[in-house]
Amino acid sequence: MRENGMMIDLDLIKEPVKEEFEALGTYFNSFLQTDIPIIDRVFQHLIDGGGKRFRPLLVFLIAACSPGKNSEDAFRLAVAVEFLHTATLLHDDVVDQSDLRRGNRVAYRIWGAEPSILSGDFLYSRAFNLLVDIGHLGILETISGATTEMARGEMLQLLRSYSTATTQEEYLEVIRGKTSSLISASCKAAAYLAGFDEPAVQNLREYGHNLGMSFQIVDDVLDYTAEKGVFGKTTGKDFLEGKVTLPLIILMERLDGRERRQILDIFIKDSPEDGDFQAILDLMEKHGALPGTMEVAGRFRDAALKTLDRVPTGPCRKSLESLADYVLERCL
Amino acid sequence: MRENGMMIDLDLIKEPVKEEFEALGTYFNSFLQTDIPIIDRVFQHLIDGGGKRFRPLLVFLIAACSPGKNSEDAFRLAVAVEFLHTATLLHDDVVDQSDLRRGNRVAYRIWGAEPSILSGDFLYSRAFNLLVDIGHLGILETISGATTEMARGEMLQLLRSYSTATTQEEYLEVIRGKTSSLISASCKAAAYLAGFDEPAVQNLREYGHNLGMSFQIVDDVLDYTAEKGVFGKTTGKDFLEGKVTLPLIILMERLDGRERRQILDIFIKDSPEDGDFQAILDLMEKHGALPGTMEVAGRFRDAALKTLDRVPTGPCRKSLESLADYVLERCL
Repeated sequence: MRENGMMIDLDLIKEPVKEEFEALGTYFNSFLQTDIPIIDRVFQHLIDGGGKRFRPLLVFLIAACSPGKNSEDAFRLAVAVEFLHTATLLHDDVVDQSDLRRGNRVAYRIWGAEPSILSGDFLYSRAFNLLVDIGHLGILETISGATTEMARGEMLQLLRSYSTATTQEEYLEVIRGKTSSLISASCKAAAYLAGFDEPAVQNLREYGHNLGMSFQIVDDVLDYTAEKGVFGKTTGKDFLEGKVTLPLIILMERLDGRERRQILDIFIKDSPEDGDFQAILDLMEKHGALPGTMEVAGRFRDAALKTLDRVPTGPCRKSLESLADYVLERCL
Repeated sequence: MRENGMMIDLDLIKEPVKEEFEALGTYFNSFLQTDIPIIDRVFQHLIDGGGKRFRPLLVFLIAACSPGKNSEDAFRLAVAVEFLHTATLLHDDVVDQSDLRRGNRVAYRIWGAEPSILSGDFLYSRAFNLLVDIGHLGILETISGATTEMARGEMLQLLRSYSTATTQEEYLEVIRGKTSSLISASCKAAAYLAGFDEPAVQNLREYGHNLGMSFQIVDDVLDYTAEKGVFGKTTGKDFLEGKVTLPLIILMERLDGRERRQILDIFIKDSPEDGDFQAILDLMEKHGALPGTMEVAGRFRDAALKTLDRVPTGPCRKSLESLADYVLERCL
């Protein structure tokens, strides 16, 4: 979906909470509160790596639906959810034995696994300190529930790696846990801050859930399409790590026995090569696996848009709507 | 210190909260609430490994100072702090690249680093779920503050590894974070549950702090003394991992230049042998390093006992007093 024939501009989406978004960096530092330089460096490395700060943006947009509510508490919540997200990235990189994230060397390849694990634990704890400072039990319950779902989702993903029999339902369960739960919880918690009533809080939770699902599905498509990709670095990383994501699941569903066998042969190779990955991309092209995957993402986008009825019309709601489109646009 | 000429009996200490302590296993399982078998297995492996459940014992003893208070909330708190403790053990084993814990193979040597990191994250999250269920912001603040201190302490320990210039003060700062903070927070949170007034809550926090300090110092002594020890397994593990603990610090303070050089030569060896470790033990014997370390632990024990004034006399207080002695006895 395009506005005036242009790609959706993320800066326009951010416009209603531009000031908060720009102040975020200062809050990161002041809320990190560490006297240990390496924690600071590890965190700064991830921040400088160009994270989208997607969760803080949602927090600000929703909290700002209710005028005057982008208080210190909104910053606490925004920073807390970004700390939690960063903590899982740090732990995931060790779990996945990644080399690169967003084209940059991951923290644990620079400093070792120990500082990544411990900095993750530190960020995790600081996040809960900030949530306790907000002092709202509903918010604490929402976020701590999400962190449990995240850990569960990550574990499910690990258990199902290299399992080409993974179904769409099983895949959706994994991404609901590992990605959508925190995005959904961020929206719900921000709705509490904005003082929405319970039905609206639940709607915004639903919005976050659907947005998070389409967000992750699109991410998984990008792993098969990113331009100038180097196999196993900027593209094909999931495939190399044995992560069976929706594009591959949909492809497998559409293959005949001979082709499916071809994929399996590549999947179990110790060192698949660029040519192998190209063969998979060719099969995806032939069977329309990526458009098929985008259709699923589109359904979650549609569901997200339907849940915004109870949010007052205005610039913040408009941004939330555009965001649902933007998440899909990234792929087009 | 002995009672009736016998070693202090841990079962006698547990007596006032025997029922709660025995029910703990059931609560572990019901509060774990996971449908993922490997999380269950990893956790059960640590539980079966003979953890002392020291933190739950403190929670029960303090909560039981106020009759009728060993409610579901006491179980939630007891399980939460044990989950947090277990989570840090899981992460520490990966960080330390340990082989054995309490003579058993560590989880990550059995299942790999990934399940250890993710199960740790899961336990961490479940702990906060339980604390949110208690619904007491003072308790949440106390425990989440402690987890930040723990992560900081672990990081400090990592940064100071192989640093033989570590001072007693620096060592005490590390163990205050990594060990004493959660023990202290467990006592303080239990004091909230028991309904103690603020001065008594602070006193019990102090008690926990001092108990935790002597507990860790004694643990560090045991690493140089455990009977039938195999170097690097049941004894000498800290030394091999480059952890500079109080026995080594006190030894270094008392050595002349030639002897200190001898220690440094062993410390930087890639593969020190049994004979090397014996040489260190001989120097410790010669210079009284272990009794010197136990003196420091004894001072913390004395400080712990002084903080129990505001706790009503009775079997629970008696157990808390005996526990302070028991922590030291383990070494005699």
